[in-house]
Amino acid sequence: MSASGHFLFLACFPVVFATTPASGIFFTMRVYNFSAGPAALPEEVLRQAADEMLDWHGSGMGVMEMSHRGPEFMQIHAEALLDLRELMRVPASHQILFLQGGGIGENAIVPLNLFGSKPSADFVITGSWSQKSQKEALKYGEAHIAATGRTEAGFTHSPPKSEWKLSDDPAYVHLCTNETIDGVETFEIPDLGDIPLVADASSHILSRPMDIAKYGVLYGGAQKNIGMAGVTVVIVREDLLDRSMPICPSAFEWKTVAANNSMFNTPPTYAIYIAGLVFKWLKRQGGLEVIEARNVEKAKLLYDTIDASSFYNNKVERRARSRMNVPFFLADETRNADFLAGAKERGLLQLKGHKSVGGMRASIYNAVPLEAVKALVEYMKEFEAKHA
Amino acid sequence: MSASGHFLFLACFPVVFATTPASGIFFTMRVYNFSAGPAALPEEVLRQAADEMLDWHGSGMGVMEMSHRGPEFMQIHAEALLDLRELMRVPASHQILFLQGGGIGENAIVPLNLFGSKPSADFVITGSWSQKSQKEALKYGEAHIAATGRTEAGFTHSPPKSEWKLSDDPAYVHLCTNETIDGVETFEIPDLGDIPLVADASSHILSRPMDIAKYGVLYGGAQKNIGMAGVTVVIVREDLLDRSMPICPSAFEWKTVAANNSMFNTPPTYAIYIAGLVFKWLKRQGGLEVIEARNVEKAKLLYDTIDASSFYNNKVERRARSRMNVPFFLADETRNADFLAGAKERGLLQLKGHKSVGGMRASIYNAVPLEAVKALVEYMKEFEAKHA
Repeated sequence: MSASGHFLFLACFPVVFATTPASGIFFTMRVYNFSAGPAALPEEVLRQAADEMLDWHGSGMGVMEMSHRGPEFMQIHAEALLDLRELMRVPASHQILFLQGGGIGENAIVPLNLFGSKPSADFVITGSWSQKSQKEALKYGEAHIAATGRTEAGFTHSPPKSEWKLSDDPAYVHLCTNETIDGVETFEIPDLGDIPLVADASSHILSRPMDIAKYGVLYGGAQKNIGMAGVTVVIVREDLLDRSMPICPSAFEWKTVAANNSMFNTPPTYAIYIAGLVFKWLKRQGGLEVIEARNVEKAKLLYDTIDASSFYNNKVERRARSRMNVPFFLADETRNADFLAGAKERGLLQLKGHKSVGGMRASIYNAVPLEAVKALVEYMKEFEAKHA
Repeated sequence: MSASGHFLFLACFPVVFATTPASGIFFTMRVYNFSAGPAALPEEVLRQAADEMLDWHGSGMGVMEMSHRGPEFMQIHAEALLDLRELMRVPASHQILFLQGGGIGENAIVPLNLFGSKPSADFVITGSWSQKSQKEALKYGEAHIAATGRTEAGFTHSPPKSEWKLSDDPAYVHLCTNETIDGVETFEIPDLGDIPLVADASSHILSRPMDIAKYGVLYGGAQKNIGMAGVTVVIVREDLLDRSMPICPSAFEWKTVAANNSMFNTPPTYAIYIAGLVFKWLKRQGGLEVIEARNVEKAKLLYDTIDASSFYNNKVERRARSRMNVPFFLADETRNADFLAGAKERGLLQLKGHKSVGGMRASIYNAVPLEAVKALVEYMKEFEAKHA
């Protein structure tokens, strides 16, 4: 490689300086990480976590080493709860719980907690994740499909409420408000009156303000916009805490978890700590309105690039396009491997689409900077110019 | 405080040098941490984790940011499994799974996975944790108490098999092989023929070699000897994977988890990484025989100190005394607060006993060095000399 080639190669990576306990000052190459989850985290958060690893705030212990009942962790936990409540403007009617098991765990945990009064719910299918939720709920009762966004081209839209065929008196209606694999986001949340709406918001929670009062339950695995894999945020309206099935495992029974301030079993303390650092980072950015504006800009840049070319395409209706997960396809799919190899050379990683849909997918969560999307669209244009 | 007093105060803390990304070289005061869990971790492990936080092995990503399906995390995961199998000499008949939910989660997850053929099990009660397991199993079927170690003085021993009253053909017999709260450890594991033995080994797993072939299932939450809270190791004999109840949530169904190499749902990737670092640390120490010898020495020093004095006492029969969790009581319990305050001044932390039994408890897991126990017994003698 020539000297100038080497220089160019370095220049397209985000280079950061860092010191570490073991090796002193060195260069860290940070890639642009488009993983669908676990996903990129803010560098400031990682830096602080590294900094506090052996000694949190002079306690002489790392966060991983603290009793969950001790004053140090109780403070970390309380601040995380308060910051999240403030960021998402969670009303007093709703409790915030930290559980384990992620979105797939919740597919069972939700009916186990809400089927106590009547074991039947309705599902709006907007992609792979809502499909999985509906299937798992069948273990515990009836799971009607109220509407589906599936077409011959795959999942392309979020059916509006006028198309939902609700059953008679369901325990709840389930909706995945952002489908990570299919790139379908639901922006209009209807009023369902007395029927609780349950939303799997795993892959777009904290990406924009949401009116929590509209939801009976809103949950999300942490590994996209909240922090690291291993903790699930469940926001639940208090009057729904009393509807669990007798077979609900205590560790996953919201009522029990709520009564014990998410410490009925040992909570995933470090995952809660990292989430708390992300919440403080979000507050420093200016909160969810500022984050939303950034996310709109990032998504617009990428979708505009796709739409401006016949070399790339995205199949989702414009009004349902996810701001977080952007699947796209090369018109000539024989070039997929070349596209990914070239991207990797430029430090643009984890762009391969989910195996169930193929193609490419750029997940552009809160921690993915605008610069990453700029680098991606530059590369897309270059690749097109070379191969079109 | 006088200059010499200040010097003495510093001298009883373990002082380490460290550099961190944010603040360069500084002194880190590390306390001696006797927490029952989450608990002390080896400093080498924390140091490496801090070092690799922003960039794991030149990948340009931290471990938290990696897709669980990517080659980097797949390597971390595979090595953790192999190292654990080697350390514990897990036979080929048994699979190792990484789950979420901890020991309390498993209290439901075990019957949900083993009650499919017959919903009935026997429980040997040796302390608070086996009591909780028995109670939770009642949600899913019958849960007979086969024996109890409870006496008027609390839980003081592990009933031998000759005292177990097994029911007719139970799905399994459950035993908590180390009771974290009561300090009761079971060293003799009987042969139960065709009846699977299920062991909750959360608080002493990896503290000594165990003959895994004797167990149908052996599980442990990570937050004592494995790593950080948020991952549960489940070692299960393959022929037991086919006995789940239809209501078992997929994310916690061992068969499903095993068929997907513990990646049916997004695994707690960072907790698995930390566990993997601990496994490598254990291998560097020389494996479980070396660790056991150290643990025997640490426990002997502490129990000998307790037994040599009428100022302190421990109520557990000698042959059932836990090497990991040492509850002890001051004869004069009005001095408890003074004892804890003096300990804290010396950097001896988290010594307060569980609220259900009171008194003191020193948890002396693998990562707690002999020096910590020496510092503790020195302090105990000093405190006794001053107050006896």
